[in-house]
Amino acid sequence: MRTITWNDDNQVIQMIDQRILPQEFKILSYDNHEDVADAIQTMVIRGAPAIGAAAAFGMAIAAKNFGASDLDEMLTDLRNAGETLNAARPTAVNLSWAVRRMLKAAEDFVGSVDELREHLLNLAKRIADEDVEINKALATHGAALIEDGDHIIHHCNTGALATVDWGTALGVIRMAHEQGKNIHVFVDETRPRLQGARLTAWELEQYGVPYDIITDNAAGYIMRKGLVQKVLFGADRVAANGDVANKIGTYMLSLAAYDNGVPAYCAVPISTIDLELERGDLIPIEEREAGEVLDLKLKGQRVTPEGATARNFAFDVTPYRLVAGWITEKGVIYPPFSENVQAVMKK
Amino acid sequence: MRTITWNDDNQVIQMIDQRILPQEFKILSYDNHEDVADAIQTMVIRGAPAIGAAAAFGMAIAAKNFGASDLDEMLTDLRNAGETLNAARPTAVNLSWAVRRMLKAAEDFVGSVDELREHLLNLAKRIADEDVEINKALATHGAALIEDGDHIIHHCNTGALATVDWGTALGVIRMAHEQGKNIHVFVDETRPRLQGARLTAWELEQYGVPYDIITDNAAGYIMRKGLVQKVLFGADRVAANGDVANKIGTYMLSLAAYDNGVPAYCAVPISTIDLELERGDLIPIEEREAGEVLDLKLKGQRVTPEGATARNFAFDVTPYRLVAGWITEKGVIYPPFSENVQAVMKK
Repeated sequence: MRTITWNDDNQVIQMIDQRILPQEFKILSYDNHEDVADAIQTMVIRGAPAIGAAAAFGMAIAAKNFGASDLDEMLTDLRNAGETLNAARPTAVNLSWAVRRMLKAAEDFVGSVDELREHLLNLAKRIADEDVEINKALATHGAALIEDGDHIIHHCNTGALATVDWGTALGVIRMAHEQGKNIHVFVDETRPRLQGARLTAWELEQYGVPYDIITDNAAGYIMRKGLVQKVLFGADRVAANGDVANKIGTYMLSLAAYDNGVPAYCAVPISTIDLELERGDLIPIEEREAGEVLDLKLKGQRVTPEGATARNFAFDVTPYRLVAGWITEKGVIYPPFSENVQAVMKK
Repeated sequence: MRTITWNDDNQVIQMIDQRILPQEFKILSYDNHEDVADAIQTMVIRGAPAIGAAAAFGMAIAAKNFGASDLDEMLTDLRNAGETLNAARPTAVNLSWAVRRMLKAAEDFVGSVDELREHLLNLAKRIADEDVEINKALATHGAALIEDGDHIIHHCNTGALATVDWGTALGVIRMAHEQGKNIHVFVDETRPRLQGARLTAWELEQYGVPYDIITDNAAGYIMRKGLVQKVLFGADRVAANGDVANKIGTYMLSLAAYDNGVPAYCAVPISTIDLELERGDLIPIEEREAGEVLDLKLKGQRVTPEGATARNFAFDVTPYRLVAGWITEKGVIYPPFSENVQAVMKK
């Protein structure tokens, strides 16, 4: 089962509800783009590549639902739908990338309105299929960096659940494991939403990869003890200079890796690299509701005092100087990123 | 109410049960040193200075309970009690410091066994009283570093609850607030046991100091955004070269502070400085049970998959190069620490 699929019998988009994993496995169905935007916002689906695919299907189902009688009218409607989807979450570039790709296809299209509807649905399916192929290519390049016996710190969830299937950074780990390499993963729990402790641990269980969950706080200590050989994470957006916007905590993790001579690799499909953005500090960082920080129970006991307040930043920016390399579907790109990425893009 | 006191009417040691704060405020009573050791181990009482006082009272109550008929017999019994207390937690030096001070007093004592019992109880009370005086002196030196308008990141709990009363790093914040300085605290939640979100937030509520809880992961991001002027934390043990063992996450926090030019101060009573220990990596680091990491609910929902495993390191070591200064009761000590601490010790 993929994280997101098109159900042809019922003409709906289906997604695994990631908010209730690993305790419950449930599939939700969507028949309109407003609900898809809401699913992205409330994190039924999350992970930059997965929300890219969700946006593509959201555009396709919008086209299906709009009663436009000609292509111009349809284009206007689709632009509005694209704005709704884009507004769901600000940081990951894949969302706007997918919306733009769908709009471009609509603008370039020649044919009837009904043919356009079919064309857009096919393109959304292709974007989803491509994601899986890209991840497998990326994982193969990345797995070549992993040595037998490596202990790897992994941040957040970048697995099958963060993509259409297979995963990026976690896909590298899965590939290395399937190649028979003996590896062990320290799973950063990844506060506030704990995608590591919830989703990555659950995926590693399925794949049979040995792991231990650690608090995010502990990553530096275990690196100082020499217990870690690699650090791996994904990206929500990479700027032209190489700065990486990713799940909050990636910056502190990368700093600790750098301080201990442990290479920190960012696994990133080319579609997540935003060459139009000069530097990372220009990337909009989402601030989410305080409840994700405050509504916590440890051993059955409520933690925070009544009336406590919190700030909840969902992402941070890791400066390029701390990143050892980008693992992409076109190979591993090393610093200087801004030069080397150009060469790869031309391939 | 102090964190730990002697109740003369009932001849028991009384402690605030910190495991159930801030939801419940409850006082527990102890009439033997084995239960005191257990209270330290299970974190009814925690914080290096507070467990120092607990160990002192534990030795006093052991002397009270032992039926020794002469001083030699009593000394043997007390040495055994000291071993039991020392074994409760390995990292904080205050535990063994207090046990040693109580034993030394017993060894040097001249008089009857009953007089020794009284002498040791008085010494334990004095150690507790001294802690409060030391903290207030330390806080006064530290508050001089805090400027009006400062935003301060604080790690773990170092307040009244971590000491007999008043606190160390949080005592500095409290003092600056009482001096009328306009300050705001970013409270690191401090996984795994969340002493920041539980205890520090609760204390700041009492003192009326404005604060927001953040996940530990977010500290680096808010420093990069220029939102923070100081970082403050305590210490469980400081080595002669200046390395600081403190609650897990202090190292990553200090790295981020250093990377952003934000001074990170360690508030530390002189009794926590272990000049006999050459370097921080020689400090024993406690590993606690995995349940503190795994048994978590976010928004009412269990997080980790069934059967998940975890590693749970309770402390880490921050290299001296990342620490801007030690705030002690004898003044602020700046690098080079190993030289400058000698001068202060001679005062």
